[in-house]
This record gives sequence, structure tokens and C-alpha cells, in this order.
Amino acid sequence: MTPTPRTPAGSVGATVSFADRLADRVAERRSQLVLGLDPDPARLWPQALAAASPDGDPAARAAAAVAAHCAALIAAAGPACVAVKPQLACFERLGAPGRIALGIVVERAREEGLLVLADGKRGDVDVTAAAYAQALFGPTPTPFGPAAGLEADAATVNPLLGEDAVAPLVEGARAVGGGTFLLVRTSNPGAVDVQDLALEDGRPLWERLAEMADDLGQVGPRSGLADVGAVVGATVPAHLVRARELMPRTPFLLPGVGAQGGRVGDLAAAFTPGPAGGLVTASRSIAGAHERAGGEPAAAARAEAERLREAAWALS
Amino acid sequence: MTPTPRTPAGSVGATVSFADRLADRVAERRSQLVLGLDPDPARLWPQALAAASPDGDPAARAAAAVAAHCAALIAAAGPACVAVKPQLACFERLGAPGRIALGIVVERAREEGLLVLADGKRGDVDVTAAAYAQALFGPTPTPFGPAAGLEADAATVNPLLGEDAVAPLVEGARAVGGGTFLLVRTSNPGAVDVQDLALEDGRPLWERLAEMADDLGQVGPRSGLADVGAVVGATVPAHLVRARELMPRTPFLLPGVGAQGGRVGDLAAAFTPGPAGGLVTASRSIAGAHERAGGEPAAAARAEAERLREAAWALS
Repeated sequence: MTPTPRTPAGSVGATVSFADRLADRVAERRSQLVLGLDPDPARLWPQALAAASPDGDPAARAAAAVAAHCAALIAAAGPACVAVKPQLACFERLGAPGRIALGIVVERAREEGLLVLADGKRGDVDVTAAAYAQALFGPTPTPFGPAAGLEADAATVNPLLGEDAVAPLVEGARAVGGGTFLLVRTSNPGAVDVQDLALEDGRPLWERLAEMADDLGQVGPRSGLADVGAVVGATVPAHLVRARELMPRTPFLLPGVGAQGGRVGDLAAAFTPGPAGGLVTASRSIAGAHERAGGEPAAAARAEAERLREAAWALS
Repeated sequence: MTPTPRTPAGSVGATVSFADRLADRVAERRSQLVLGLDPDPARLWPQALAAASPDGDPAARAAAAVAAHCAALIAAAGPACVAVKPQLACFERLGAPGRIALGIVVERAREEGLLVLADGKRGDVDVTAAAYAQALFGPTPTPFGPAAGLEADAATVNPLLGEDAVAPLVEGARAVGGGTFLLVRTSNPGAVDVQDLALEDGRPLWERLAEMADDLGQVGPRSGLADVGAVVGATVPAHLVRARELMPRTPFLLPGVGAQGGRVGDLAAAFTPGPAGGLVTASRSIAGAHERAGGEPAAAARAEAERLREAAWALS
């Protein structure tokens, strides 16, 4: 597998749009499945616990076990996926060793030919948003030379602070052929509290967020998709149809399948602009598949990932 | 200086409300000034650059210099302040060494008797919000023992995902006598894009966020203030008056003074419920005071911090 490089060979400084890289990778791997990596140190696969050193403080030992767990999960389920989505909170709670573990996991995913979607839902005023862009997409200039960032392929972004806060993340990503996914309508029950508030014209707030995502995206010349995506929960199929009307060329990141009740069969509207129009994320349903299906964790994860991959691919 | 402990001596498991701890600390230090720590590796004080080891990769060297810069800033301006507000993005962009630097800075602030307000503006679905609470307020249970978190006294929180996403952060903080500050109306120009959108009843969206902050707070028995605060930009004084009507007992974190154009004299409404009702944050105006006033960075920072402290204290 030779992944589409960020910078095409022979070009001078030109970067390939994230949208085109995404579409290529989806076609190559025949998959829209995104493997969520939300490691809980209390629920790791047994083989990962054995990998932790007997020495070190609890955070360092747990971080080593978390890295081993994610590596095993990527080895098992990765072949059925197009990307991984590490949940930054789960690494941050292990401090500096957690950040080292995150770097190892990103490297492992890349070796498997997977894109890396960093799920941190960052959002802040312009100077700070630019610092987050450096953290996620790097590098940061320092008097000692450039400090590498996480080098993610894309990141989730919270748009509550408005366009001037989102722009540095969109631009920081775009400069390296990366993408962003704006929160538009999330999958949790509390999404009704703010995102569904009716505006003066009667429309829900999330439709304004959808317009922002649509405005900010640049369309890749080959794929016809935009490099600014949208997080749209898979739990309310009616939202998906409306979201596609408002964002005809936006890749959707679709959380909520499995543990949160969303069903793959309800996602057809996501794929209108092509197979890469919808990315189906699943984490607990894959990592914990053996708890329902029995058997060895890796084999159960592989089977569940392949089942989800086939179900999504059949829709597109 | 003996700071109010999180757990009073002789009590069994009882924690003191963040609101009461904050009010005590403001009274002891006669200050509502919060020192923002937004270190840019390209703009550190000269003495801090000299502190970096000649060895190591750029991130490790820059992180050591960042820690030295923040320590010098805390030593200079800390005596005029009640808290520090590290901007998490600025540490995250230096990877694992950045997280180590952040831990050093938190420790240094605590030694100076300052509260620590972690500015990360986190917000995510319930399970993930709980992981952020562990990262910020700790600890995280692991099979190897508890992994310590950052042990911040408070953290900024983004409420776009609704109450079920905010609650785990509020509760995780409260369990250790910590606080949260919900984004209600931020200080950046783009805040109009989403936070000022008019709802069906004609009111701006941010007023709903204000009601959420008001609902979620628990009032400390001694201070009469709530343990859920609100971020309200200092750039539009009219908002501050309205915000105080909607949140009569909520501590306000007031960014935007100085570099963003807000003036301390316009903040009087924040202090209606008492001296701890408003926390004035300043970062670039203190760390970069020597660029305007001339002289040695530490002396200029100390003078500017004392000027801001006096100006705010005189209003309350």
C-alpha cells in the first residue's frame, strides 16, 4: 500500500488537498470506517497489560499499556479501516507519558496506511487557535529549530467562537494538506440544548454551523469534496438528509454508530457526493466486540470492523 | 501565605467549594488579577532562553525555556495576582516536553500561593468529558494505581455540546473543590458569528449559555458565589451588565483587557456580588510590558501587574 503523499513527488511546495487524499484512500482501501481509539486504562486488552514495564509511575506504565492496546487494535481492525481517530482526552489524562503513547499510536497507524483524525474538538481565539494548529499539524518555530507537532491528517474543531477562531485551524491544516471537521450536530442527547436552539428564522442553530463548514471548505480538484468536513451524529437520520442539502460537498464524520444507537443503514444520505462523503466512526463496538461476541479480542474486533466496513461500503 | 486547602484539616472527605476558596484567596491577596501564561517560544524573555540545555531536540529545549520564562514571569508578576491561567495550546505544541513544562509551571504557581485556571476550553460527549476531567483534575484509575492529573483548581469549558457534556467536567472539578468557567460570550470579533445569533425569542444565544452556567453552579456557603463561572469578554461593557443580571452569583473570568482593547474601568458590573465576582486576565500586556515601557522584562511586568491589580481592586 503506497498512501497518497501530502506533497506530490516533483512538485515544489504544492500540497494535495485533504479531500483528494481522503477520497483516494477510501477508494484504495474500499473503506469508510474510522477506528476510534478511546483507550480506558481500566479496560485494556489483556495482552496490552502484559506489555507495561514493571517499573515506572502509574501514568508511565498505563501509557505503555495504552500504546500496546492501540497497536494491537490497529493491527486487528486497521485493515478494514481508512483512518484512526484518537480521542486526545484519553491520552492527555496520562500526562507526558500519554503524549508519548499518542505519538507511538499515530506512527503505528501511519505504518498501516491509515489517516489520522485527531479528535480534540479544539476551539479558541485566533492566536490560540494558531497554537492548536501547530500542536496538531506542526511545526512550531522555536529559537532551537522547528518543534514537530502531532502531524495529524485532520482534526475536529469546535466552532462556538466563530469564524475568526476556526480559520487558523482550517488554514494550518490546509497548509500541509490536512483537513478539519467542524462540529455541526453531535450525537449526544444534550446536543438539543444548544445546537438545536431555534433561531429567529425558525431554523436550528446547527444549520448555521453547517453553513459555516460549507463556506470554509475548498473543493479538491479530483474528488469534488471539500477539505473542511462536518461532524454529524449518526443518531438522527433526518438530520443527515438536511445536513447533506446544506453541505453538498462536505465529508461527514459520523459518530454514534453502535454504542450510541446509530445504524449504518441510515447513513445513505452521507454518501451522495461519493464514497468518501461519509466516514463511519466506531470505537467501543470494535474494541469491545469480544464482550458481546465472545472469543479473543483481536479476532472479534477484526470481524466487527469488517462487518461495519462492508455495511457502509454497500451503501456508497 | 497559607492558602485555603482543598480539604479542611480534621474533616473527613469534605471539600471546600471552589467559590469559597476563590473568595478567600482574592481577599488574602487583595487581587482579582489572573496572569495569563501563553508562552510563544519565539518571544521568550532573554534570561529564559539561556536556561535551555544545549542538548536535546528543539521541542525539549524550547519546553525548558518556556518553563523558565513562565517561572520568571510568575516570580515577577505573581505577587500582584490571585491565579495563573496557562493556555494549554501553548504547551501542547511542544509535545511531551511541553506537558512536563506545564507541570513545572503549575507547581511553581502553587508555591507562589496562586490558583491555577487551566485554559483549554474543552468540551465533548459524556465519556470523553469525564476523561478531560481526569486529565485536568485527576486522578485516573489504572491497573497500576492512580495516575495524577494536572490538578488544576479550575478549567475553562466549551458548552456547545450541551449540559450532558458539561456536567462531567463540572462534577469532576467539584469533587476536588475545583471550578469550571463556561464560555458564555468570548472577547474575539468572531464571537458575533454564533454566540450573538438571535434566537426565536429575540435574545442572543449567549444568554442561553449564561442560563446554563447559572443553573449548573452550586453556591459556596461562605462566599455566596457559585462554583461554575463564566467567561465573559471585557471588550463589550454592555454585555457585562446583562450577563450579571442573568448570572447574579457567578464568578466572571474577563479576558480581553489590554491587548484586545478592554479597559479595567468598564468592569464594575462584574464585582456586584463581591470582590471575587470578577477575575481580570492579562497575559501579553504583562509579559510584553517592557516592549512598550522599556526597561528590564521582569521589572516592567511587575509594574504593569501591580497597576492592573490596583485598578481592578479599586472597582470592587
